Amino acid sequence: MSPLSRRRLLTSAGVGAAGLGIGGAGFLIGQETAEASAEGTGTVEFYGAHQAGIATPAQDRLHFAAFDLVEDDPRALKALLEEWTAAAAEMSRGEMVGDVNRMPVAPPDDTGETVGLLPSSLTVTFGFGPAIFERPALGLGARRPAALKPLPPLPGDELNGLESGGDLCVQACSDDPQVAFHAVRNLARIGRGTVVMRWSQLGFGRTATTSRSQETPRNLMGMKDGTANIRAEDTGAMERFVWVGSETDQPWMRDGSYVVTRRIRMLLEVWDRASLEDQEQTIGRRKYSGAPLTGSREFDPLDLEAETGGKKVVAENAHVRLASATVNDGERILRRGYSFTDGVDQSLGELEAGLFFIAFQKDPEKQFVPIQRRLGQFDALNEYIKHVGSAVFAVPPGARPGGYVGESLLG
Amino acid sequence: MSPLSRRRLLTSAGVGAAGLGIGGAGFLIGQETAEASAEGTGTVEFYGAHQAGIATPAQDRLHFAAFDLVEDDPRALKALLEEWTAAAAEMSRGEMVGDVNRMPVAPPDDTGETVGLLPSSLTVTFGFGPAIFERPALGLGARRPAALKPLPPLPGDELNGLESGGDLCVQACSDDPQVAFHAVRNLARIGRGTVVMRWSQLGFGRTATTSRSQETPRNLMGMKDGTANIRAEDTGAMERFVWVGSETDQPWMRDGSYVVTRRIRMLLEVWDRASLEDQEQTIGRRKYSGAPLTGSREFDPLDLEAETGGKKVVAENAHVRLASATVNDGERILRRGYSFTDGVDQSLGELEAGLFFIAFQKDPEKQFVPIQRRLGQFDALNEYIKHVGSAVFAVPPGARPGGYVGESLLG
Repeated sequence: MSPLSRRRLLTSAGVGAAGLGIGGAGFLIGQETAEASAEGTGTVEFYGAHQAGIATPAQDRLHFAAFDLVEDDPRALKALLEEWTAAAAEMSRGEMVGDVNRMPVAPPDDTGETVGLLPSSLTVTFGFGPAIFERPALGLGARRPAALKPLPPLPGDELNGLESGGDLCVQACSDDPQVAFHAVRNLARIGRGTVVMRWSQLGFGRTATTSRSQETPRNLMGMKDGTANIRAEDTGAMERFVWVGSETDQPWMRDGSYVVTRRIRMLLEVWDRASLEDQEQTIGRRKYSGAPLTGSREFDPLDLEAETGGKKVVAENAHVRLASATVNDGERILRRGYSFTDGVDQSLGELEAGLFFIAFQKDPEKQFVPIQRRLGQFDALNEYIKHVGSAVFAVPPGARPGGYVGESLLG
Repeated sequence: MSPLSRRRLLTSAGVGAAGLGIGGAGFLIGQETAEASAEGTGTVEFYGAHQAGIATPAQDRLHFAAFDLVEDDPRALKALLEEWTAAAAEMSRGEMVGDVNRMPVAPPDDTGETVGLLPSSLTVTFGFGPAIFERPALGLGARRPAALKPLPPLPGDELNGLESGGDLCVQACSDDPQVAFHAVRNLARIGRGTVVMRWSQLGFGRTATTSRSQETPRNLMGMKDGTANIRAEDTGAMERFVWVGSETDQPWMRDGSYVVTRRIRMLLEVWDRASLEDQEQTIGRRKYSGAPLTGSREFDPLDLEAETGGKKVVAENAHVRLASATVNDGERILRRGYSFTDGVDQSLGELEAGLFFIAFQKDPEKQFVPIQRRLGQFDALNEYIKHVGSAVFAVPPGARPGGYVGESLLG
């Protein structure tokens, strides 16, 4: 492990390739400081009670990947998580992975595409899929949390197995897409022989607000998305809905969470043909202001009882009604999704694009599943979307320096 | 067409959805100014002698799309280019496409996902594929430039037809990926019934430097890419290698250019196993500094004759040697490519990622084709890459306000 930052490496490399890391690293400090004051250059602490990337204000870009174990070897799984933790901590600090002073006859530990880039608020978040608790050789059967089950079939599911599930997940978020890509790619490299990548998703724009410091972004339907999301500053809501507490049957999950991902294709051609009024009625909000149909500004209250001409202003099948805590027994989730596009759907001759939905919660069975069951059955939005990928992972608590993510389970 | 900017719309929408565009747009001017001074908020002029997006300093993000004509109707093609031009000019100014004052019972003209976003240096660049000159009904056969031919088969090609070719192309570049996506999506929408999308490519990070104001970025091999690229400030090189001049057989192409795109998969797993020395010998440059093997700093001269121990310092099959102007009869191209990743290659269980190569030039037959023929045969880099997509387009000159791109051909 080397504490050489990517910018310092760049500096010292400038004086000759043989001089890597041997000094001369100081003279660009002024430049570093100037650049660090620009947007997207912050550093998010990797270590802590919770993993980073959940309560962290949602960064602009995402690279998410799911992996499957090659063999059921508990020692290999533990070694992988130790290595992944060390590498994720290094990358989060803007350092290169591993030892940059290796001999030129060896492959570099770090693949190098972020040399010269700033940390860009990188967070790396790890999770365990339900399947690893079902493999006798791993010996984890008795440690499985009741809250971690494969999601049941849900109304309207059109899932593709190749874009669903997985034994392990890595969520890399950053304000620079190359930094997020680099994290997943280097973790995949470290995992070679232990895991294979099952699926991967790039997200080009955040569609969620997770901090009071952020403006609500728009999804690819042109609608503001996440107005009613939990804000991390609301620690009461985070404790109640997101962080696993003393109620868990598995103390190793304390301070962790559960993440559900859904790859949601938007049928944009159909949506684009809907009238502005239809679009707004479908969602239950105004397109441009983001205001609920019962208000004129984004954060005006959503009044589900308001009527006009004997009919509800916010229709019975409007998305915001069916997704609201009021309708869902008070349950909420922390959404942290991203817009994606992956080329052309050749069968339709249109862009394959949509929302890569990510939601953190204390118990998917009590939170995501009933909410989605209701949405999948009744939501007016179903005409314009389909769920094509799905996964759920237990996200263990954060690591302390010297420890590793998953230590409470595998240690 | 409405001159309502996206930020002004946001402002006026805040006072009620019914007030769209009816005033009250002034009071956020201060905020607009403050934000416009931040990075990525600039506006690039759409109209001009040349199309924007060629000499423009390469923006951070790309959405490129190729389209096929649904029917061979010259009037439909002309109408499409008129509409595309108007929309591209509006989007480049940070305005919404079309008329935002339409009735709520109609679908919005603009899909809306960039409302509240800044112009972010959007450029939209259009091109014509060779096939449109081969369709008798379009009547363009006699206007075909000698320089516009389908690329010949090249050594090492492993092309996929679904990622190659096309009748028309749109290159949207921006510092905000949502702004680039929005441009392609809205042009696709305008084109419905006239064109279908054939393929589309998102690029997450620029891999080319096209201005002296820019630092050289790194590609996904971790190497600096584009050190020796043409800089737009070098107007002599632009005239000599990029802009079509009086030498053309087709005056309508004067001040235009020709673009070649190649989807180049990088076999990252193989590359990552190569030693640092092998990687540097393969390219002919140092990995971290970007210096040629015959120097110690990035812009030190590449000395192709230098020898050590009776052998060339820069190997005979090194990428920089074979791509150099010296070896290619003085020919150069303006590269403007982007890194991409599109999920997992299921056959290999690894990331499908690489370089979406884009190069502008005066004559592909004299520039890209011989360079790539040499590279495809001898380049040491071939062990680590494969070309899976390919296309070539004539990029006509820019439009004047009131005119449209392609007018010199179709007008």
